[in-house]
Amino acid sequence: MGQTAYRTHHATEVTEELIGRKVTLAGWVDRRRDHGGVAFIDLRDSSGLVQIVIYDEEVARPLRSEFVIQVVGEVRARPDGNENDHLATGRIEVVVENLTVLAKADALPFQVSTALENESENRLPGEDVRLRYRYLDLRRPSMQRNLKLRSDMTKAARHALEDMDFTEVETPTFIKSTPEGARDFVVPARLVPGSWYALPQSPQLLKQLLMVGGVERYYQLARCYRDEDFRADRQPEFTQLDMEMSYVGQEDVIAMAEKVIASIWASRGYEVTLPIPRITWQDAMDLYGSDKPDLRFGNPLVELTEYFHDTPFRVFQAPYVGAVVFKGGAATPRRQFDAWQDWARQRGAKGLAYVIFAEDGELKGPVAKNLSQEERDGLREAVHAEPGDAVFFAAGARESSQLLLGAVRVELARRAGLLRPDDFAFTWVVDFPLFKRTDDPDDDDVAVGHSQWTSMHHPFTMPSAEWIDSFDRDPEHAMSDSYDIVCNGEEMGGGSVRIHRDDIQDRVLDVLGIDRAEAQEKFGFLLEAFKYGAPPHAGIALGWDRTVSILAGADSIRDVIAFPKAGGGRDPLTGAPAPISDQQRAETGVDYDPDEDED
Amino acid sequence: MGQTAYRTHHATEVTEELIGRKVTLAGWVDRRRDHGGVAFIDLRDSSGLVQIVIYDEEVARPLRSEFVIQVVGEVRARPDGNENDHLATGRIEVVVENLTVLAKADALPFQVSTALENESENRLPGEDVRLRYRYLDLRRPSMQRNLKLRSDMTKAARHALEDMDFTEVETPTFIKSTPEGARDFVVPARLVPGSWYALPQSPQLLKQLLMVGGVERYYQLARCYRDEDFRADRQPEFTQLDMEMSYVGQEDVIAMAEKVIASIWASRGYEVTLPIPRITWQDAMDLYGSDKPDLRFGNPLVELTEYFHDTPFRVFQAPYVGAVVFKGGAATPRRQFDAWQDWARQRGAKGLAYVIFAEDGELKGPVAKNLSQEERDGLREAVHAEPGDAVFFAAGARESSQLLLGAVRVELARRAGLLRPDDFAFTWVVDFPLFKRTDDPDDDDVAVGHSQWTSMHHPFTMPSAEWIDSFDRDPEHAMSDSYDIVCNGEEMGGGSVRIHRDDIQDRVLDVLGIDRAEAQEKFGFLLEAFKYGAPPHAGIALGWDRTVSILAGADSIRDVIAFPKAGGGRDPLTGAPAPISDQQRAETGVDYDPDEDED
Repeated sequence: MGQTAYRTHHATEVTEELIGRKVTLAGWVDRRRDHGGVAFIDLRDSSGLVQIVIYDEEVARPLRSEFVIQVVGEVRARPDGNENDHLATGRIEVVVENLTVLAKADALPFQVSTALENESENRLPGEDVRLRYRYLDLRRPSMQRNLKLRSDMTKAARHALEDMDFTEVETPTFIKSTPEGARDFVVPARLVPGSWYALPQSPQLLKQLLMVGGVERYYQLARCYRDEDFRADRQPEFTQLDMEMSYVGQEDVIAMAEKVIASIWASRGYEVTLPIPRITWQDAMDLYGSDKPDLRFGNPLVELTEYFHDTPFRVFQAPYVGAVVFKGGAATPRRQFDAWQDWARQRGAKGLAYVIFAEDGELKGPVAKNLSQEERDGLREAVHAEPGDAVFFAAGARESSQLLLGAVRVELARRAGLLRPDDFAFTWVVDFPLFKRTDDPDDDDVAVGHSQWTSMHHPFTMPSAEWIDSFDRDPEHAMSDSYDIVCNGEEMGGGSVRIHRDDIQDRVLDVLGIDRAEAQEKFGFLLEAFKYGAPPHAGIALGWDRTVSILAGADSIRDVIAFPKAGGGRDPLTGAPAPISDQQRAETGVDYDPDEDED
Repeated sequence: MGQTAYRTHHATEVTEELIGRKVTLAGWVDRRRDHGGVAFIDLRDSSGLVQIVIYDEEVARPLRSEFVIQVVGEVRARPDGNENDHLATGRIEVVVENLTVLAKADALPFQVSTALENESENRLPGEDVRLRYRYLDLRRPSMQRNLKLRSDMTKAARHALEDMDFTEVETPTFIKSTPEGARDFVVPARLVPGSWYALPQSPQLLKQLLMVGGVERYYQLARCYRDEDFRADRQPEFTQLDMEMSYVGQEDVIAMAEKVIASIWASRGYEVTLPIPRITWQDAMDLYGSDKPDLRFGNPLVELTEYFHDTPFRVFQAPYVGAVVFKGGAATPRRQFDAWQDWARQRGAKGLAYVIFAEDGELKGPVAKNLSQEERDGLREAVHAEPGDAVFFAAGARESSQLLLGAVRVELARRAGLLRPDDFAFTWVVDFPLFKRTDDPDDDDVAVGHSQWTSMHHPFTMPSAEWIDSFDRDPEHAMSDSYDIVCNGEEMGGGSVRIHRDDIQDRVLDVLGIDRAEAQEKFGFLLEAFKYGAPPHAGIALGWDRTVSILAGADSIRDVIAFPKAGGGRDPLTGAPAPISDQQRAETGVDYDPDEDED
């Protein structure tokens, strides 16, 4: 890693080959042990630890945790029995001849020593304290690893894209408001008082303009901004790996993205088997109750709508009845089934019906007595359960019932320990509907237009070939050429073939209830660009914070972001956001009144 | 470059080896010539041009410039005499069997055809029109080359940094106002009504926090924001290649940056001779009248203060008198010398004194008669001029006089055609003063503190070792460990060793007149971080738009930015900035009144 003004070696470069040599090292006092007047100090730098030994008590006395020191000393073998095989440098130590304190450290608000790394994370303070002292939190080896992992993943993705002749293009942060579903962050423009820039929710329109501009393969690690209400694992600014190609269709984009993903995972030694399997959106909903199914385990949903077609049980006289098997669940105590009811109610469901197939074949549980004999007899076979299993049911509207069962399926797997973070199950979800109803209860986006239909992805998504002529006559069934990439039940990213013709774009806007004047005002520039020969194009974006957190096995995307925001968009470290001065406010022009400025 | 849904080959991949083969191509109609009922079309894609031939008049008739077409056809050799050796594909053509119009094009507001590329740029419309239709402007081969060059340079820089074990870290855009000299752009924070984020003028404090956090080698291609009054070649948002290292001094950073720069230039086949020469800031001012000297040519300034110590000429009885030689200038007509006076006055000078050394040895020009005989006799030798040269003088305050002569020197070289854009003369400017006076007429930054001193670079710059104890007693002479990298008279970037100790930082803030409460409010988090063991660190940033424009030989940084802003920060393409709706405004919280919200 190279010699610098302050060191000849990094800590972990000091190995047995250097025994007898003099080295200069610099780093933090990670931990100190005193023994018979001799100080043994673990010196920590970005490479790891090395033990240094100080015989001079005067020299050693002031040193405390996280002092920054520079030491000159000779490398020697550790005495027999004192080796530490867990360390790269565990067979040597450096006897200090000269020590310089480069910076002192006050007592720390929390310990960051490497020695704590393998102990429980419970010794960490709450996240607000970690973020308040993020520069200390980042010193912890697990955070160092996360930052390094993120950098390595970025490198791997870039190299893959470079190999495929992609051009990296930077698009502006100061743009005009665009209709992507969430609220824009806005910036007052001092030089045009009363006017504002918007920050991009994504570079969607800009990358489409690049395609119109002849950049056939574009990529960018793009910062995006969405002013949404704060939720766990959501940040006001986030990063996406944004890619777009001209003269391509869905298969081209999928093949390209698979190479990128394989390259990223390969940077950590994981081989992704290509091609990545695909599932239609409809199958994902039917089989896994999710548009981002976790395929690390099986246990698909079983639809029983037909099975209960003539049921005497009122609850199951519904547009949809489905079930998911709770393997070995028959042994579960009654109070745990009660807890499942609470779990379901917290998710907005009325409850969670279940039956138990006892080992002796008896059907138990509160639902059992409501079923007809015929239904009881055939049920175990219908749901593919074994004696000793239990089964959860959901009945009602198809989509909400499936989503509930999908959540049950994942929760069962979680409790069974099947969600291993180093087991990666990828899938493409394909064949999405072009539109969805605006009253979709799962949609917390601001509706873009004024109709009962909104875009499943965004308003620039191309209808699939067979729907180009008819999508506006039958929005409910129209399909699009779009695709999501899912890993371990998380949506890593998604994309679509884009509209490149103004006539099709106009018709989509009509379905969305966006009138021409509004469209012209908001993105007339894109519609106009389409009049000058726009190549067919398609693309995809990976949510980069999410993708890194999946490969890192991190609990939160905040653990893979150097300086994330806490709840409400606050930064406990700097105190942002904060009031501005009257002068600053005056300069922004937000209080500009055109009527006062008539001379 | 790979087959896609729309093509088997790119245009320039169709060479003689494919004669007899069937290919599918897609791209724009670049130019069309009709000859005997046959249409010859240059098809343009990102690789270049290929000629396609359409025999069917019905098929060819509708095709106009910039239509997007897909053609299937057989490759054949061009008939004898019709080859075009300027084109990679000049020996073949593709006879179209099947043509699909993928998108039509209206008549263009200006032509983008490759055929115009080598003609005068005067055929281009004004820049506002180019920016209004940027997606067309980008299709022009010179803009395509600029975008590709930028991407290639970024790749080269990244690879060099990766080879030196740098970690790429993304820092946030939503931060707290920091004291870097220019005005911040600010963003209202809806979730904390009345509060604002600031956008970073640079990641300076954040990268220093990363050093405190143990990231020993950081880099980022960082977007920066400064709300300054619009000037030519200044953008409200710009990009810098930002680098920082721990446990290093000035020499380490310079050596690292030289590797990066050499790697960037090597990506275009230029070898940068390392080490890059250095000049002190004082020498740069004395010899070239600039802190960013253009060293593609010589002709240094000559100081004559001592020479004119006893001059009878009142104008030269000044704290500084200097001169620059106008090689062969004696033959210049009088009216051109008058024009030089105007040129100087436009730069704020009173005029530009000069003398002429006629070929016959006679000293002419309006200044000559004011000088003593002795001064006249020795002058040519003193300024190292030859008979037939002229000499321009400046007299007055040292710095402003030197800056004027420096500008004369460059203007002379420009008129002499010495400023070749493909000739790259690098230099480090080193040994900067730590402070400068706040009344510096060249400084248009907002003063940071309330004293007569402001930072030459920024408030986080370390005094050089010999000044650490005394810089606050003698701010006028104190020096810093900072360095600028200059190429062809442009500042490509700069950096410094940073302060890593809170006691030194406190003393620098005192000199700048920033009081403790204000410091605490603005960047108390950095001062606090320094209490927990901050490693010594140093860094550098390259202005990326500028660096690309230098290597591209572009007239303006706007030519190397995909979507730049025009004057006043306007975007002629999207119409940004623009008013926002009342609802949007209400949501931003800028009109929040805490007194109205007491329940």
